[in-house]
Amino acid sequence: MSSPDTLAGNGNGAGADEKNKVILTTKPISPNSKKVYVEGKIHADIRVPFREITLSPTAVSGNGNGNGNGDGSEKPEIEINEPVLVYDTSGPYTDPEVKIDVRQGLPPLRQKWIIERGDVEYYEGRPVQAIDNGYKDDEKAQKLEPFPGQKTRILRAKPGANVSQMHYARKGIITPEMEYIAIRETQNRKILLDDAEREERLKGNSWNANLQEEITPEFVRDEVARGRAIIPNNINHPETEPMIIGRNFLVKINSNIGNSAVASSIEEEVEKMVWSSRWGADTVMDLSTGKNIHATREWILRNSPVPIGTVPIYQALEKVNGIAEELTWEIFRDTIIEQCEQGVDYFTIHAGVLLRYVPMTAKRMTGIVSRGGSIHAKWCLSHHKENFLYTNFEELCEILKAYDVTFSLGDGLRPGSLADANDEAQFAELETLGELTQVAWKHDVQTMIEGPGHVPMHMIKVNMDKQLKECGEAPFYTLGPLTTDIAPGYDHITSGIGAAMIGWYGTAMLCYVTPKEHLGLPNRDDVKEGVITYKIAAHAADLAKGHPGARYRDDALSKARFEFRWEDQFNLSLDPEKALSFHDETLPAQGHKVAHFCSMCGPHFCSMKITQDVRDYAKAKELEEKAALGEGMKEMSDKFNTSGGKIYSEV
Amino acid sequence: MSSPDTLAGNGNGAGADEKNKVILTTKPISPNSKKVYVEGKIHADIRVPFREITLSPTAVSGNGNGNGNGDGSEKPEIEINEPVLVYDTSGPYTDPEVKIDVRQGLPPLRQKWIIERGDVEYYEGRPVQAIDNGYKDDEKAQKLEPFPGQKTRILRAKPGANVSQMHYARKGIITPEMEYIAIRETQNRKILLDDAEREERLKGNSWNANLQEEITPEFVRDEVARGRAIIPNNINHPETEPMIIGRNFLVKINSNIGNSAVASSIEEEVEKMVWSSRWGADTVMDLSTGKNIHATREWILRNSPVPIGTVPIYQALEKVNGIAEELTWEIFRDTIIEQCEQGVDYFTIHAGVLLRYVPMTAKRMTGIVSRGGSIHAKWCLSHHKENFLYTNFEELCEILKAYDVTFSLGDGLRPGSLADANDEAQFAELETLGELTQVAWKHDVQTMIEGPGHVPMHMIKVNMDKQLKECGEAPFYTLGPLTTDIAPGYDHITSGIGAAMIGWYGTAMLCYVTPKEHLGLPNRDDVKEGVITYKIAAHAADLAKGHPGARYRDDALSKARFEFRWEDQFNLSLDPEKALSFHDETLPAQGHKVAHFCSMCGPHFCSMKITQDVRDYAKAKELEEKAALGEGMKEMSDKFNTSGGKIYSEV
Repeated sequence: MSSPDTLAGNGNGAGADEKNKVILTTKPISPNSKKVYVEGKIHADIRVPFREITLSPTAVSGNGNGNGNGDGSEKPEIEINEPVLVYDTSGPYTDPEVKIDVRQGLPPLRQKWIIERGDVEYYEGRPVQAIDNGYKDDEKAQKLEPFPGQKTRILRAKPGANVSQMHYARKGIITPEMEYIAIRETQNRKILLDDAEREERLKGNSWNANLQEEITPEFVRDEVARGRAIIPNNINHPETEPMIIGRNFLVKINSNIGNSAVASSIEEEVEKMVWSSRWGADTVMDLSTGKNIHATREWILRNSPVPIGTVPIYQALEKVNGIAEELTWEIFRDTIIEQCEQGVDYFTIHAGVLLRYVPMTAKRMTGIVSRGGSIHAKWCLSHHKENFLYTNFEELCEILKAYDVTFSLGDGLRPGSLADANDEAQFAELETLGELTQVAWKHDVQTMIEGPGHVPMHMIKVNMDKQLKECGEAPFYTLGPLTTDIAPGYDHITSGIGAAMIGWYGTAMLCYVTPKEHLGLPNRDDVKEGVITYKIAAHAADLAKGHPGARYRDDALSKARFEFRWEDQFNLSLDPEKALSFHDETLPAQGHKVAHFCSMCGPHFCSMKITQDVRDYAKAKELEEKAALGEGMKEMSDKFNTSGGKIYSEV
Repeated sequence: MSSPDTLAGNGNGAGADEKNKVILTTKPISPNSKKVYVEGKIHADIRVPFREITLSPTAVSGNGNGNGNGDGSEKPEIEINEPVLVYDTSGPYTDPEVKIDVRQGLPPLRQKWIIERGDVEYYEGRPVQAIDNGYKDDEKAQKLEPFPGQKTRILRAKPGANVSQMHYARKGIITPEMEYIAIRETQNRKILLDDAEREERLKGNSWNANLQEEITPEFVRDEVARGRAIIPNNINHPETEPMIIGRNFLVKINSNIGNSAVASSIEEEVEKMVWSSRWGADTVMDLSTGKNIHATREWILRNSPVPIGTVPIYQALEKVNGIAEELTWEIFRDTIIEQCEQGVDYFTIHAGVLLRYVPMTAKRMTGIVSRGGSIHAKWCLSHHKENFLYTNFEELCEILKAYDVTFSLGDGLRPGSLADANDEAQFAELETLGELTQVAWKHDVQTMIEGPGHVPMHMIKVNMDKQLKECGEAPFYTLGPLTTDIAPGYDHITSGIGAAMIGWYGTAMLCYVTPKEHLGLPNRDDVKEGVITYKIAAHAADLAKGHPGARYRDDALSKARFEFRWEDQFNLSLDPEKALSFHDETLPAQGHKVAHFCSMCGPHFCSMKITQDVRDYAKAKELEEKAALGEGMKEMSDKFNTSGGKIYSEV
């Protein structure tokens, strides 16, 4: 994706903060949570990972007088709270049963499935050259250690074969990847909705009538066949845990990483990816520039359980010493093959930056802000020729389908300010991306479309509507959008607002923005802040779309909150560490985490405590019915008083 | 507002963090900004404060080759960038000409206007009692020092008079307050829109057809007369700088403060209010509980340039030792008068929590979460009587109109979780608030309505629509709403999303939420984070509503960004300190703040730099027209190459 152009590059990247040098993070995400696996039915060797959060029971006293008020006067009854399964992007790193060794890489989970389809062959890949890492042939520099092994065992489609998931889907084949995804997307659908709830869920949401109550492998296949969803899974990246990007599934998020300025430890480079996916990144884009691009990417791919995307023009430009005019289709093509062989799962391709669109940006407030877009614009102007990615697009399709790499058609002319939102240049490019989508689909090559950027709230929906129309419902992948330009330092928030909304409207994946956007390179804390903000946006969108698997977690957390099960509340949250530390700033004592009050109102002033009283009385007297008739209230009032129900009962 | 129930109380509050003990913050908000005043036309003694941000000029080189590329080959032309005026809530604290003395209080800006209307009289107010501060008559405790003076000079309406701004408005009088507001809301409307822009601005925004291009004093009067806007300005709080809350004006935000656990320094209590308004809080609610409520409030009022709101039931409850059942109308009435005399500008009144609604909450996921709501619910159940605020509402109106205190009709039954959003209890109460609005308006008492809470995105708009319908378009004042429950520690963000949306839909004021919501008491940093997040939401809403005064700041910042005027970019932002510090983490050298690149892409890889080239060439060749005809490109290409236009030109 070109969108994150400003987030990495020049030999720096996320996590490069010197203070934060760490080794791989492998501890569990919260206490009382563990990795579990659900097995496949069609394909027996499928094991889909989830994180299971164990909850403590609710104390229910026998006489309906308060919810576990702890007065010790009787043995409390117990209500069991079922454990909650959550979608887990963190991969084997959070499974204590798996031994992590970056020099070994992750187990090639999908290898067997890929081989068994019988349509691939091993071959000796393109030899790695010094220039792939930005060095001259004879240069003696401190280079990044290469990943050991695997170099000579490259897979590609047999002559005439097409190994894309879209191709299989269109032939009616349900692949193990598709079944895996169906399980992964449905783990939490135990809570089936009644008709009234379903209707309410979809209220004001007519553009999502296709949302399924139950995600079946067949539904996954159908969505991929229609091009409405993609499964980014290069056959040379068998380490991935399959996932899907499409608007009738959970909204996904991407985070960006880049290589460090100086060759650093392998662990440090890999940790950036581990850290992002730990907090919820569904895919990671490697936006490295400068030196060691190839080696860094190899380490990341061999150790990444999530799909990896790149912007190949960045590496191609390095190969011509950064002079855009010297770029050629041949150099770009060679770079594409290099990365297909390594296992990159999707490529940002700025094939929509056409010569005739470039002048449309001249009157803009902020011109061209996509790095990829500006490179192509400069090339086009300089040569007075059409963009070579556009003119060679069919050949690109031929290459990508031999490895099942997905197109992420880049929005090189996206707006860089509210003033430029939804302008002629942006929408002209979008129409071209729609045209290219049809070409890609002719080859059964999976395709998604990148989107803006900077857009005020009232102009967001037209972006989604136009994208669906122009691009045949191919998945939309947007950066934000930022809903105002006046808050540098807080652009995770300005863009989180737009991301939640466009996710609701139908965007399938949201590219994160960190607090450092426009100002500097994100450090480890910034990356986490960006990922969590985007998990919030994606989840808020899932809720608003009426995704039947979304609200169970909110309900479980709210119930825990109401019942003062503090530890459960922390463990169910997106960031258990922060929730716990914020709580402990005011009330650090362990005893307070089982207390029936909190620091905000203190033990004497707690509305939730009072509500428990109200509820218990109402329940005991079947108050709902009686109150509606205006009866029974007097009796209840007397009882309430004689039982000594004080607001200020001591805990 | 009852909404912030969880944000203060139990003798603690915002800013109580021990590490952050500070005196009053009075330094300028950013370099190159200063306080300026605009004078009135109808009323000559009006001086409306703004913050003026001075910008550096744009360097424009003579030959159209790059925007100040600094090669020193010629003397650059200069394009002046006009200074930008921004709305300023920080009061005299940021005016170096004003001497601040908390023992003196702020100058009584409105005193003359109030007296000159001839409808008020001084009287000896209700004597302050020990219980007002939570002490027994003879108790010897470390009490907070009382504010010196002013106690015997209380203003109220003469018998039979009504001193509310609504009353004047309905009589056709344009008060100085109204003219003040008209100037305050229009400072930035220099940029008038053409027809096409105006049409685009209102696209998808039909519910805001009343939005004015030009805010006149007469428009302010008319909106207040209709009840569609309020001016919260108690005649005993003449220190306020008048402001307006209504959906055809800029969206406002509120922040909450509370007293410290132990009697602390005066400065520390006042600083909480100063800190909030410094970063943009338009009003502040004092949610103190426990000891020293009266004295703390007095210090805050005498030093506050922004309207102050309270929830009087909190103090009334203290007077009956926290036992809700012992509350009486008389005690509440006495507390109301005490606070009217002190100068509180608006009261949260939970008069819609009716006896028959209480049982509706029994089946909720999270029952009653409003502290005020639960107090009244408990009182109603315990006495089997109707809420005494409801039964005495007409008398409340009589009191409030004698001081021009505004009703903020509280949503005591608001949802505390997504599961309870838009339920029977919430909407039943809203209908009662609509009924009470009509009663208040019969007395010409200004009124706004409080709203939720926790609501998923697709259920937000119906809240706004129903509020407008039920409450006759009285201003809506909401807490968030939070769009998901799963992110404690990030609820400024989960709610900032909902706040931006509901602000766009028409909510007039947004009550902030800090990162500590649900977990603990906010410290100084949390308060700032909450205020800035809500300024973002309010501004994003202003942009989406098409407020003609909103976008000039985004445009000014984007232009500065594109032209690498780093200091201007920081100074135009909502938080100049953070923007600067984030930038300096990666590139601290002073020279880098005038550099034509940034740390994200470095000097060699800058899309904005490339765009400048594209733009300059396009401009020089009038490319737009020619390109449309497919001509001229070859010539330009040649020129571009011969001029040595490299991507990697050194800065």
